Amino acid sequence: MATANRQVKLARRPAPGLVTRDVFAIEDSPLPEPGPGEFRVKTAFVSLDPAMRGWINEGRSYVPPVAVGDVMRGYAVGRVDASNHPEFKPGDAVQGLFGVQQYAVSNGKGVVKVDPNLAPLERWIGGLGMPGWTAYFGLLEVGQPKPGETVVVSAASGAVGSIVGQIAKIKGCRAVGIAGGPDKCRYVTEELGFDACVDYRGGNLAADLKAACPKGIDINFENVGGEILDTVLTQMNLFGRIPLCGLISAYNATTPPEGLKNIRYILTQRLKLQGLIVFDWVDRIPEAIRELGQWHAAGRLKIREDVRDGGLDAFPDVLNLLYTSGNQGKLVLRV
Amino acid sequence: MATANRQVKLARRPAPGLVTRDVFAIEDSPLPEPGPGEFRVKTAFVSLDPAMRGWINEGRSYVPPVAVGDVMRGYAVGRVDASNHPEFKPGDAVQGLFGVQQYAVSNGKGVVKVDPNLAPLERWIGGLGMPGWTAYFGLLEVGQPKPGETVVVSAASGAVGSIVGQIAKIKGCRAVGIAGGPDKCRYVTEELGFDACVDYRGGNLAADLKAACPKGIDINFENVGGEILDTVLTQMNLFGRIPLCGLISAYNATTPPEGLKNIRYILTQRLKLQGLIVFDWVDRIPEAIRELGQWHAAGRLKIREDVRDGGLDAFPDVLNLLYTSGNQGKLVLRV
Repeated sequence: MATANRQVKLARRPAPGLVTRDVFAIEDSPLPEPGPGEFRVKTAFVSLDPAMRGWINEGRSYVPPVAVGDVMRGYAVGRVDASNHPEFKPGDAVQGLFGVQQYAVSNGKGVVKVDPNLAPLERWIGGLGMPGWTAYFGLLEVGQPKPGETVVVSAASGAVGSIVGQIAKIKGCRAVGIAGGPDKCRYVTEELGFDACVDYRGGNLAADLKAACPKGIDINFENVGGEILDTVLTQMNLFGRIPLCGLISAYNATTPPEGLKNIRYILTQRLKLQGLIVFDWVDRIPEAIRELGQWHAAGRLKIREDVRDGGLDAFPDVLNLLYTSGNQGKLVLRV
Repeated sequence: MATANRQVKLARRPAPGLVTRDVFAIEDSPLPEPGPGEFRVKTAFVSLDPAMRGWINEGRSYVPPVAVGDVMRGYAVGRVDASNHPEFKPGDAVQGLFGVQQYAVSNGKGVVKVDPNLAPLERWIGGLGMPGWTAYFGLLEVGQPKPGETVVVSAASGAVGSIVGQIAKIKGCRAVGIAGGPDKCRYVTEELGFDACVDYRGGNLAADLKAACPKGIDINFENVGGEILDTVLTQMNLFGRIPLCGLISAYNATTPPEGLKNIRYILTQRLKLQGLIVFDWVDRIPEAIRELGQWHAAGRLKIREDVRDGGLDAFPDVLNLLYTSGNQGKLVLRV
């Protein structure tokens, strides 16, 4: 029986650039006990998400920053191991914002029960978890895809992008990915079933994108920003939609990123560029879980996790893989 | 009886920067005769619009460019002086895309009959014409204002901006203008009735805007772009809307404009930035004319034209006033 709870805490605000190990303190604290109406979760896998880089900066983004000294915010999946809550029993598999730690206590708010018989536990913080829900609502609600349209998605081999393209295909669209390097592009087309994938490191982004999108681009699901977004903008069709989900190219910038140059296309093509955060559809998450789960069960949604070992001590190094294109598939850490 | 038709033709593509006189050729051609089903208009006032700078550049924007050798594209208002068209009689006052010339022949497509008893002729190419319709659809359809919200509009003393703020007031919003110089700001608040106006030349744009928008900004009707848009972005409220109507700060740039730096606020605040062109609501223009006309008749819509004399020969110089903040109110040229 464990008596300690290993935790990754934020030790200090990071300097611009990749996160250094000393930004986090990895410490043992006493095992927490659930109070009345609460339960305790033993986490099995922690999710690593690009948004984490923003959460540890000072200043409010779409959520308040993680306070220095607090446990690092993060999604995790695990099993209830003690409970005073009527709806959560020991052994239940659950997913939630449990933080980067071995044990978490919860009152059940925002926690989703998951079925490990339908998909492995780690998938419920990946393609069937927040990244999947983000892809689902971002593409369908903001993007409004229609059959026959061309959908481009950047970071196409990533946790969100890989789902966006596959939902686009399910909805009858042409799905074109943008990814870094031939291996990722091959994965995107051969394993995920996108119609094409452009390697942004190939040196011919504009021409390659044009070849992959002969009828122009109707929807651009943007995860990256910077030069990639500037290039896509020049090829958008009239009344195109751009769900803006992430700007990962800027998250670790040590100098102010160059501005967006081609905003004039938003005017002349009457584009809609709209920011989104999955929490805006919090009441509809069960719908996303149900539909993604059905597609997954039917074999229409391929999902791959990149599971890293090393436990919580490896968290700072594993996190940086997201910003150095070091992962392939949804990045998770085995606790 | 006139026998010649004075015309402003595009002589060559302009170099970047303000338009020089030699870009246009001002010539007489024979008086055109209307064919079957056509009528002839003698123009009284020609409209000068910021979009003209884009129309004479090479390369397709939202409309094809004016061809070298063609009459300059432009809205005008005048009276029918000869007609073979059953619905347009000599003496009728009409508004349309008649071009920058003394006489135009039309088949009636896109032409609107106007009532000079309701408003002076020149107003039908200004606040009650295309600029008014742009303000109407851009604010109401893209902006979706709700009572109590704060609406910011740049180029607030201009033809479009002045109407945007007044419609915002009619809809129960707080209207805040951004304009260049104390005279324009005084006009915007004292004559047009905006709640506040920020002088972007005052050197404290961010702080002045913050003071004028204590509850943040819900809608930003953007006519200018550049640093003004970048500053407004940092003060937008959650789920704010940005109808993108113009980017006049870049139209005469001689070097590539600096990029938009603060796009991350579109993500974190879940903003919607959407380009618009009035022609997208072409079927609903009668509705705009009717409603704007009613507000105008009720004294709720103040409109001021800046009428320039000098005839068509003055067109190139008058056009540049738009890009040097030289006009106050809707700029029109008396033919």
